[in-house]
Amino acid sequence: MNYPSKLIEDAVIEISRLPGIGKKSALRIALHLLKQNENTVQSLSKSLIEMKQKTVNCTVCNNISDESVCNICKSKMRNKELLCIVEDTKDVLALENTGQYNGLYYILGGVISPVNGIGPSDLNFDKLLSKFPSNEIKEVVLALSPTIDGDTTSYYISKKLKDFNLIITTIARGIQVGSDLEFVDEVTLGRSIQKRINFEVFTN
Amino acid sequence: MNYPSKLIEDAVIEISRLPGIGKKSALRIALHLLKQNENTVQSLSKSLIEMKQKTVNCTVCNNISDESVCNICKSKMRNKELLCIVEDTKDVLALENTGQYNGLYYILGGVISPVNGIGPSDLNFDKLLSKFPSNEIKEVVLALSPTIDGDTTSYYISKKLKDFNLIITTIARGIQVGSDLEFVDEVTLGRSIQKRINFEVFTN
Repeated sequence: MNYPSKLIEDAVIEISRLPGIGKKSALRIALHLLKQNENTVQSLSKSLIEMKQKTVNCTVCNNISDESVCNICKSKMRNKELLCIVEDTKDVLALENTGQYNGLYYILGGVISPVNGIGPSDLNFDKLLSKFPSNEIKEVVLALSPTIDGDTTSYYISKKLKDFNLIITTIARGIQVGSDLEFVDEVTLGRSIQKRINFEVFTN
Repeated sequence: MNYPSKLIEDAVIEISRLPGIGKKSALRIALHLLKQNENTVQSLSKSLIEMKQKTVNCTVCNNISDESVCNICKSKMRNKELLCIVEDTKDVLALENTGQYNGLYYILGGVISPVNGIGPSDLNFDKLLSKFPSNEIKEVVLALSPTIDGDTTSYYISKKLKDFNLIITTIARGIQVGSDLEFVDEVTLGRSIQKRINFEVFTN
């Protein structure tokens, strides 16, 4: 594409590096920003730089935080007997948005993936294991992705924690709400008939 | 949504103000930027601010430019007998990308729109009209959107220019390449049968 200005071209290249944004959307964003007043652009840029410079990882759970201990770890309202292990900050957000979990989290920062050369030593296992034995934590919920790598990691963690007298659970797998039985893959459908649960009416 | 950090929340709000980006995409972009090194974020911010601060409007055609006269107006390769009137910088880019036009442009900055309270005095008509009579320009191509407002504006311009002995043309309207006749709206189809053209094989 021929851009009318080198500065616009530079901006379009930078914007199109963001995930999910192609060259056309980037140009649309650049032309949109050109129509705004300068404060809008300054405040966008400032908030991005501040986010990058000032956020830290929570020293307790590794979640992204404005302070050294995040709001969830600091909160007195959370159930400290429950520890949910997730891969990423995005997973914490997803679980928090369900409103169905009130315990603490621990963010691994990835999963064991031999194919990608990620072994246990590349993840935050040491800090996780240093939490045990613990008087407070009674149950560890493994909430990793239901992939081979996720399952491998769950298995690895369950082995490491087996001597600490903990309840180790994992998020339920089965058919998704609203899905059509006919189109569910056979592994999921097989597991969900095998691990069938008592029928009850869900209220939310 | 509960964000793990106020700084992320601020960034998400700023990012989601951009066109075509919702809260979910904004969060994805924010978390992506957090994973990059600081230079990436600095260079994105710098290019946005520089684009906003340093680009100007071409004094000849109103297009966005790095200098007071844009590359198209400065170019010795363009046909100075042709002047194409468009609404917006985006339209110049679209026409340039076809590679089928070699004349100059003039950007109105909008179209006359009584519904939105935009009259002729709100647009760059004075500068346009001050170009005439001109020894160089022989043909004015009206390339405004085929809407009521676009057509009104084209009509207004053609009236203003009628005494200057110019060829006044407009981009062809008709069925789009690749469209299915059955689904073309009747106004377009009606016009395209009425204003039918000699058959020729297009080579590009």
